[in-house]
Order: sequence, then structure tokens, then C-alpha cells
Amino acid sequence: MSEAPRAETFVFLDLEATGLPSVDPEIAEISLFAVHRSSLENPERNESGAPVPPRVLDKLTLCVSLEHPFTAKASEITDLSSEGLARCQKASFNRAVVRMLQAFLSRQEGPICLVAHNGFDYDFPLLCTELRRLGAHLPQDTICLDTLPALRDLNCAHSHGTHAQGCKSYSLGSLFRRYFQAEPSAAHSAEGDVHTLLMVFLHRAAELLAWADEQACSWAHVEPMYTPPDGPSLEA
Amino acid sequence: MSEAPRAETFVFLDLEATGLPSVDPEIAEISLFAVHRSSLENPERNESGAPVPPRVLDKLTLCVSLEHPFTAKASEITDLSSEGLARCQKASFNRAVVRMLQAFLSRQEGPICLVAHNGFDYDFPLLCTELRRLGAHLPQDTICLDTLPALRDLNCAHSHGTHAQGCKSYSLGSLFRRYFQAEPSAAHSAEGDVHTLLMVFLHRAAELLAWADEQACSWAHVEPMYTPPDGPSLEA
Repeated sequence: MSEAPRAETFVFLDLEATGLPSVDPEIAEISLFAVHRSSLENPERNESGAPVPPRVLDKLTLCVSLEHPFTAKASEITDLSSEGLARCQKASFNRAVVRMLQAFLSRQEGPICLVAHNGFDYDFPLLCTELRRLGAHLPQDTICLDTLPALRDLNCAHSHGTHAQGCKSYSLGSLFRRYFQAEPSAAHSAEGDVHTLLMVFLHRAAELLAWADEQACSWAHVEPMYTPPDGPSLEA
Repeated sequence: MSEAPRAETFVFLDLEATGLPSVDPEIAEISLFAVHRSSLENPERNESGAPVPPRVLDKLTLCVSLEHPFTAKASEITDLSSEGLARCQKASFNRAVVRMLQAFLSRQEGPICLVAHNGFDYDFPLLCTELRRLGAHLPQDTICLDTLPALRDLNCAHSHGTHAQGCKSYSLGSLFRRYFQAEPSAAHSAEGDVHTLLMVFLHRAAELLAWADEQACSWAHVEPMYTPPDGPSLEA
């Protein structure tokens, strides 16, 4: 059981990056949707009763220029390229990104819970790497929730360990298709994936909120994916 | 003819607020999409040849708590209320918003052109009011383009003043319906309206870019909608 505080705002997060952890990837796109707990406790619904994104929602999506190219696979699935980002003269993941991220979080009622799908194996450590490189920090009481193990755990509890349940895919796209009988839109854009993640969360919001209250981890325990080559930088 | 510089980034903007100019409205929601000029010069297109939003796009959407309530009409069309914003514990239009706005703009290649529909009569003066209240500034070479007079002017030039052309509605929704034979989505949410504005701009991008290069005005000439009651404030 977690000793983490109860989060008042959930910040759904996705990163698109230049490749898998094995290539020491760089962030190419970051998207965050901040949703207050009250909106998750009482989701708005459409005429059919399906949950819809809350009307009051803060959103930040940024593209980032890169030092190293995408792997071919990452470029293909994200539809991004170093050349495309350079053509649009995007700035790097620099202190202005950190200032925006910190100001964005400072506008939300804390404590904040960062939510990402497969977050512990990808988004959280990669974000941690980029923040360490810049010597930057998140609010000390920030916690984080990975919906991949959380939903596996919740389903396991429901199915009492039957094999059929265990074999289902828990990819974000598969979960969305199972819950909404529709294709997720804009897959592998950071914002598209955050939208899909929010919808998946809303579908099981009551259980995931309870799970977060019990099991979410402190951001302070997240380790960087890799040590940034230059260490903390003073780049503006 | 403008002596303003040629913009390299176009930042599409919409504000939702508590009412019309006559009630000295407060901003309740702000949304900005930053698009590089190169993406507007060569819009991406779907299989039918219709323009689609560029893949590389930065986005910021923030909800803001209020001191005064919405007019009944404004609450109805925006689907926002003071109570809803307060329930989500949103912060006010404070220095953290200004820091985010400035950091967001600083990440874009300048000069920047702010684009809003009916911008000169609503969004620009209202944003100017809120920035003056906080003693904040935008980059000195920022220019601005109002697509409402720009599209009227472009159509007038095409139609040689025939009456039929002049009678058409130039509301954002009407333009979108004429250009795309579809209903705009999420009308009167700030982000929905910026998306619609971007699509309308993309439909006539070449003409609007040329118009902006000739006719865009300096942000320095924008006057506040009203004098904020407290003058510049030091509120955090």
C-alpha cells in the first residue's frame, strides 16, 4: 500500500521519442492533459452514456527539435522526423519547456498524479532523464500511476486468474477498442495517445482512482532511463 | 500597406470569456495553436485533397477561475460556469499564465503573428487588458491578423463587389461549413474554435499569408478592451 498522498489533479502524459530505451532516445513531442479529480469522480457522459472528456481541461502539447535522428521504426509510427521538426524551427527540450511544464503543473490543485500507459518503463524514466539533464524538478509531492500494470492488476482481481482474461492485450489501442468498440484517433501522436489514455481511464475511473489512492508511487522513486551525456546543463 | 515584419510562426488564438465587451469580461479559457509558416505554405492534405492540421503543432489550452460570473448567454454558449471552474480549483489569469504564454511564444521562431477571428474587436483587446493588469508584454515584433476583415477583404476583391458575395455570413462556423461542408466540432470551446480557425485558414492559406505579409498590424497598436480595475498587479 502506498504512503503517497491522495492526488487532487491527474495529469495524463505521453511522450513521442526517437526510439526505444535501448537507443537512449530523445523526447520529440510531449503532451499533457490536466484533469481535476472531481471531473474523474463524476465523468460527463454523452447521450449513449459513454464518458466524454471533461469540459474543464488544461492541455499542453509541444514538439521538440533533436540532436539525433529517429530510428526508422520510431519515425514511421510517430509520423515525425528530425527534418520536419527542424523545418518548423522547433527549439530543443530546454529550460523554456521546463518553465512551461512547471507553470502548467503549478496551476493545478496538488498533489498531482502523473498518469502514463507503460509509464514506469518508458515515459516516466525518459522525462526524468530530460529533467535531470536540465537540473529541474517536479513538485515534491508528485506521484505517478502507470495504467498498464494498474489495469492488468484490476482485471486479474476480477477474473480470479482465469487464463482467458490474462491473455488479452493491454496495449492502449487494444484497451480503447475493447472499451469503446472504435479505433483510437491519431495514434502515436502524443496528444492523440493522451486523449486515448484519458478515455480508457474514464471508462474505469472509479477503480483507477481507488487504485491510485492505494498504489501510486512517488515521483521521487523514478530513476532516469539513462544518464544524459552532458549532465545538468545551463543551456537557456 | 503594413511595415510589420514577415511572420515566421502563426499562433492561432481563441478566448472564451464571461460575456461581451459591454460587461468588461474576464477570460475563462484561452487556447493557442502555434504553426510554423512552412506548414501553412505547404499544407498537409488527406486522401480527398482537403487540408489537415499539420503534424508539427504546439498547443496550449488553459481554463481560468473568475472573480465575476458569466452572463447567462456566455455560460450557455461556452458550456462553462464559475462554479465548474471553481470545482476544478483552477487558478486565476495570473503570472503563471503569463509565464506559460511567454515561454510558449519563446519556443516559436519569430516574428510571431497572432491570428484570431474577430480578433480586433474581441480577443486581442481582451488579452491586452489581462496582460496590462499584470504589467506583462509580448515580444516587441509580434503582429496580429484578424481573419474576419481579412476574409471579407479577400472575397470582396474576388467578387468585385457583387451583392451576393457581400451578404454571406463570415462567422467562423459559417466559413467552416462553406469551406468543408461539415459542422465545426466543439464550437465555443476555446480549443474547438482554434481548430476551426486553423482549418479555415488552411483552406485559404496562400491568400491569407500574402494578406498577412501586407496588412497585419503590430501588436503594439492594440488597445485594451477596458482598463482593469486594479491596474498592474503584483499577484503571483
